[in-house]
Amino acid sequence: MEYTTDYLAGLIETGLKELKYPNEAPHLFDPIRYTLEGGGKRLRPCLLLAAYSALSHSDCTEVLPQALAVEMFHNFTLLHDDVMDRADIRRGRPTVHRRWNDNAAILSGDAMLTRSVQLLAECRPDVLPDILDIFNTTAMEIYEGQQLDMEFERRSDVTVQEYLEMIRLKTSVLLACACAIGARMAGASDEVRHHFYEYGVALGLAFQLRDDWLDTYGDPAVFGKAIGGDILNRKKTWLLITGLQESDGELASILDEDLSDDVLIAQVRGVYDSLSLGERCGALAARYSAKAIESLDKIEMDTRAYEFFRSLALSAASRNH
Amino acid sequence: MEYTTDYLAGLIETGLKELKYPNEAPHLFDPIRYTLEGGGKRLRPCLLLAAYSALSHSDCTEVLPQALAVEMFHNFTLLHDDVMDRADIRRGRPTVHRRWNDNAAILSGDAMLTRSVQLLAECRPDVLPDILDIFNTTAMEIYEGQQLDMEFERRSDVTVQEYLEMIRLKTSVLLACACAIGARMAGASDEVRHHFYEYGVALGLAFQLRDDWLDTYGDPAVFGKAIGGDILNRKKTWLLITGLQESDGELASILDEDLSDDVLIAQVRGVYDSLSLGERCGALAARYSAKAIESLDKIEMDTRAYEFFRSLALSAASRNH
Repeated sequence: MEYTTDYLAGLIETGLKELKYPNEAPHLFDPIRYTLEGGGKRLRPCLLLAAYSALSHSDCTEVLPQALAVEMFHNFTLLHDDVMDRADIRRGRPTVHRRWNDNAAILSGDAMLTRSVQLLAECRPDVLPDILDIFNTTAMEIYEGQQLDMEFERRSDVTVQEYLEMIRLKTSVLLACACAIGARMAGASDEVRHHFYEYGVALGLAFQLRDDWLDTYGDPAVFGKAIGGDILNRKKTWLLITGLQESDGELASILDEDLSDDVLIAQVRGVYDSLSLGERCGALAARYSAKAIESLDKIEMDTRAYEFFRSLALSAASRNH
Repeated sequence: MEYTTDYLAGLIETGLKELKYPNEAPHLFDPIRYTLEGGGKRLRPCLLLAAYSALSHSDCTEVLPQALAVEMFHNFTLLHDDVMDRADIRRGRPTVHRRWNDNAAILSGDAMLTRSVQLLAECRPDVLPDILDIFNTTAMEIYEGQQLDMEFERRSDVTVQEYLEMIRLKTSVLLACACAIGARMAGASDEVRHHFYEYGVALGLAFQLRDDWLDTYGDPAVFGKAIGGDILNRKKTWLLITGLQESDGELASILDEDLSDDVLIAQVRGVYDSLSLGERCGALAARYSAKAIESLDKIEMDTRAYEFFRSLALSAASRNH
């Protein structure tokens, strides 16, 4: 087993391409193929494959269907979220509801969710109840996270604590779920599964906080998209929520003004900088990255596997794209 | 065990009311409760409970979670279909996307789908792989049916054969799935499961054809909604498709004209009557009802259970609401 994201993501790409779909209504599946061809890091399924290998010392292709299930589920949530958020672009291409329409996005998304459960069930019957339970609990948490995220848009009193809980639900638990399913399928103890789950939660928080940071402080040439989108959308990120709390009304009044995009971004960044929010957001991401490694340290595995998970945690908080 | 729809539907109503949901984002679950409180015949879960009891001679509450799963799934499909079809009213109340908004309907629907899989999984581990397989295969077929239904709206060359296949997918297979899951959980042989499945398919076709008939020929006071909705929406029902094929262009030109609602309904019914489509549609529904009973006759069960399933099949093709 090669513990590199290139190798593992390659398995996922091939697996996704080889998936079969029913054929009574072929157009139902066009948006699914389109979505899955869109790339992405394939982080979640890689975590599942690597966790399984690290604990079972077996070939990770044995859990490929479950890894594909997690990736399918993740892409389903992106597809439906893009409809709800009226997002036009995803990974540099038109979103499904733009390329087709809302109905295609809703119905194909539903089919992806069911297809993900089908893939998950391609396993030994004795592990099925457990992994289905982890998967379904996680799915419900992710919907709750999306619900809170939408509610936050209409609220001006969101606290940092609430925000961290929302991103834990919306983002982290699926990474944790991927780790936990890999561990469960490898026959790990409840304790090891717990530590792997906690690793995934902390990794996800580091990842999301770095994402917030990159959207304001990233290098557009490396980040791959324009900087300041979150500011223009008044998105309630860690930076905005903390800025609103600590700037004594200054940030709130800037956001209320009718400013050009460039001026708005510059003025908001000015407030952020005066409060050192960039550094503090980076430090918080690094703290979650360290927490992920603490959980990792409690699990016995060989050096190559350990290094794989450790470097993922480090890069989550330091990556530039 | 009492083999009456009143008794069985009562179990379902109580079961639905007692369902638990997570509590991190309570508003996510308001539309789910609202939808499930909306009533309906609870036909699918009643079939599951009755099939289980008929074959196992055990108390049907043992399979209540699976019956609730099927009802939850059915209501999820209605919720998402109503968004796609822009329907304003369902069971006499505003649809979820009208009462809340599209996003609430999409996200709550997703949560209902996952909740239905959770309920399904509340069973003995040895039957889980089989019933999950039946359930997921059925779900995919239902999405395919909805996809075809939407595609038919934009097509003028839909054949009766295609229409029957579409309603088999969109409506019948879930009734069949409910019967098959009940049978599987009772430990029935593959053969008995097959006959019960075929019973459900034929029952569903009889039911849907009678629905098409009622929308044009029903008594509004008994049917509970206005007559002619399908005609006004140019919905491709068995009546319309057959009328288009056999009226030598007459029906097509009526549909093209700019007529008042009442005149349009009267003229279309005139064409239907000249071709005896009402009688023929009724006869076709009765044929499927008889086919359901043929499948039923191949399954051994006591008289009370048999009479329950038989009277359902008869009423599917003769009901007035």
